[in-house]
Amino acid sequence: MANDTTCTQTNAGAFVDEARLEQRINELAKIGAFSATGVNRQAYTLGDAKAQTLLIEWAQALGMVAETDAIGNLFLRLPGTDPNAAPVMAGSHIDTQPTGGKYDGAYGVLAALEAAQAIKLSGLDHRHPIDVVAWANEEGSRFAPGMTGSSVYAGARKLEEALQCMDADGVSIAEALAQGRTRMPVLPERALGSPIAAYIEPHIEQGTVLEEANLSVGIVTTMQGKLTFRVTVQGEAAHAGTVPLKQRKDALLAALRCVDEMHRRFHDPSDVLRLTVGRFEVTPNAPSVVASEVLFSIDIRHPDDAHLEALGKQVPQIFEEVCMPCSVKVEQLSSAASLDFDAGVRQALLQSAAEQNIGTLELPSSAGHDSRYVSELCPTGMLFIQCRDGETHNDLEYAAPSHMADGARVLAGAIYEFAR
Amino acid sequence: MANDTTCTQTNAGAFVDEARLEQRINELAKIGAFSATGVNRQAYTLGDAKAQTLLIEWAQALGMVAETDAIGNLFLRLPGTDPNAAPVMAGSHIDTQPTGGKYDGAYGVLAALEAAQAIKLSGLDHRHPIDVVAWANEEGSRFAPGMTGSSVYAGARKLEEALQCMDADGVSIAEALAQGRTRMPVLPERALGSPIAAYIEPHIEQGTVLEEANLSVGIVTTMQGKLTFRVTVQGEAAHAGTVPLKQRKDALLAALRCVDEMHRRFHDPSDVLRLTVGRFEVTPNAPSVVASEVLFSIDIRHPDDAHLEALGKQVPQIFEEVCMPCSVKVEQLSSAASLDFDAGVRQALLQSAAEQNIGTLELPSSAGHDSRYVSELCPTGMLFIQCRDGETHNDLEYAAPSHMADGARVLAGAIYEFAR
Repeated sequence: MANDTTCTQTNAGAFVDEARLEQRINELAKIGAFSATGVNRQAYTLGDAKAQTLLIEWAQALGMVAETDAIGNLFLRLPGTDPNAAPVMAGSHIDTQPTGGKYDGAYGVLAALEAAQAIKLSGLDHRHPIDVVAWANEEGSRFAPGMTGSSVYAGARKLEEALQCMDADGVSIAEALAQGRTRMPVLPERALGSPIAAYIEPHIEQGTVLEEANLSVGIVTTMQGKLTFRVTVQGEAAHAGTVPLKQRKDALLAALRCVDEMHRRFHDPSDVLRLTVGRFEVTPNAPSVVASEVLFSIDIRHPDDAHLEALGKQVPQIFEEVCMPCSVKVEQLSSAASLDFDAGVRQALLQSAAEQNIGTLELPSSAGHDSRYVSELCPTGMLFIQCRDGETHNDLEYAAPSHMADGARVLAGAIYEFAR
Repeated sequence: MANDTTCTQTNAGAFVDEARLEQRINELAKIGAFSATGVNRQAYTLGDAKAQTLLIEWAQALGMVAETDAIGNLFLRLPGTDPNAAPVMAGSHIDTQPTGGKYDGAYGVLAALEAAQAIKLSGLDHRHPIDVVAWANEEGSRFAPGMTGSSVYAGARKLEEALQCMDADGVSIAEALAQGRTRMPVLPERALGSPIAAYIEPHIEQGTVLEEANLSVGIVTTMQGKLTFRVTVQGEAAHAGTVPLKQRKDALLAALRCVDEMHRRFHDPSDVLRLTVGRFEVTPNAPSVVASEVLFSIDIRHPDDAHLEALGKQVPQIFEEVCMPCSVKVEQLSSAASLDFDAGVRQALLQSAAEQNIGTLELPSSAGHDSRYVSELCPTGMLFIQCRDGETHNDLEYAAPSHMADGARVLAGAIYEFAR
């Protein structure tokens, strides 16, 4: 056993086990698998509870202690020498999109578990506890918006409001969380917002920068801003056979004009802007009835906050212009400015990689992550690992075991630097 | 009692009772009511069974005999003097769209019941039985396509295939029908396709021709042709934050281009063409995931068969042109040519109206009705009554009691003409 060995190794990353990490990724992916490589494991489901239970079992086998909190985040603690010190935390989330893959989120949690195990195996002392975290409902597919666990923990969103959030079937987070807990070990509850010494989130890149540079690990500099909206177009139901087109208030056609005109106006030749209408629901959704209502989502992201804000302000005006003879209601759901990650955490990650001869580059994050909210509480950073073809949120998502292990090595070194 | 009176009245229409007809319309509308005037009573539901039970009770109180058949059509027979004669049939359907009103379908069945009652009260002898019919699943909202009962009765669709038709929850017509029957009186079964002497379907106009002409009743000349399609646009799921727009295969944007381009190409300045995309379903339908698939419906109607057919042939070609970089699959679900109603039935309706001094005009039907299929079995016609603002398939649908009664009067006279 490594922890019986006299330690001459100064970097815990040497104790990272590529095969063990890959095996845990595959084991976790069985829960909610919809195909050989696809996972549908949405937040606050029984699958989510089952996956958390598996994490707890793995952690307890390493002598780690599991805790939860009022919103259902999961913390797995490797104790340090000072029980009163704030933890150094690493992790991500284990919920997926309905058509998700094995790596988005899960890699971050399991890389953190691997790093904690490596630190333990290294026999290196550390003053601060090391907490592996799985933040609840990052994806926000079942319960929108996402990042529920991290935003509530950080105090950016109220617990009571989050617990009342409903899924499409009218089930609240409070109800789903209570039901999930009947399938899990009973855990002690940690207070929301309890201090954290530093937080590092490992994640697959979900882009192709690292692949093109032929590097396994990237250190994240910034996170781009994001605006989300819910739009309701109100028309009038009518008979498909009898009502002339000029007399109709067809909510579907009006919604299509809104989406089309928004894309036309926001066209970005540099292809930096990310503009997505991913949800689109028609009422009554019957083949021979003109649509009376359409509800759709908008997700707009751009690294330049001022530009993003200006685009957001145009949305209601654009829709008003083209939705006639229907009416339109635009609700802004969230607004997140761009974010610079902590210089000290970035430096610790760069240094850990350098010490282990793992080549890196620095890059921005186009996606939002739980680290956005945690950064409001403590020095925070992210590392990305290479993923194939930038594929994500589908079952083509893939990260090579060697890249996953490199990420865990860089993470282990950086965690130890803060925890020792 | 009218049938104790010596009959000097030659037209049964005089025994139509406006208040009784209106009261039955309102009574039936309570089953499935979602608002003061809106009805959601879809085919093969327990509400449908409850509504049929109410019809049976009303009919049995008049000495009529109820029967059903293998697909769940309901027949209410007023016996004639010759039990071997084929029935003269009138009616429509009692299922509604999810957002339906009180009159579409229900008026036809209850006007036929009122006409049968008027003939009985008139004391006039008739050789043929008079059958009031409620055809199963005309609307096709829960189980698509619609007109299940009439098409199976007429042999245009196979019974076995129709019984296996599934709703969105995977329940088949066979299962739903069996379940509904547990809530209804047990009825004798009539053979599908049993001979019919003549069929007349009364219906609200679902347009504004009669309202503009200030007439209560119209005699229908033709029914316009209809094509329906199911279209599947295949794209690729992707992360809303990370994947540049140029790299995406966004099925929602491609579907939007298809619908938009079809509307542009098929634009009809005369506003005769009816073009409707009423169903539009996005997968995975999550705010932060680029759509991987969209399924949408097309309903195209036009009185000119050759023109309709030419339009239908253009659909796949138009979509192929604009769906890139996604792929598209176009399935034609149904094709119904325009139909001329029987001259003898039209004449009988015109004469009945004239004898009762009810002004009429002749007009085409833009909507499809069960009479399309019944016309394959026997001389068939339709009468329309005025409805307000052409509103239909929503809870603004309205027909005045006096117009409803005029329709029942014209119907009673014409039925008697065929039945006597």
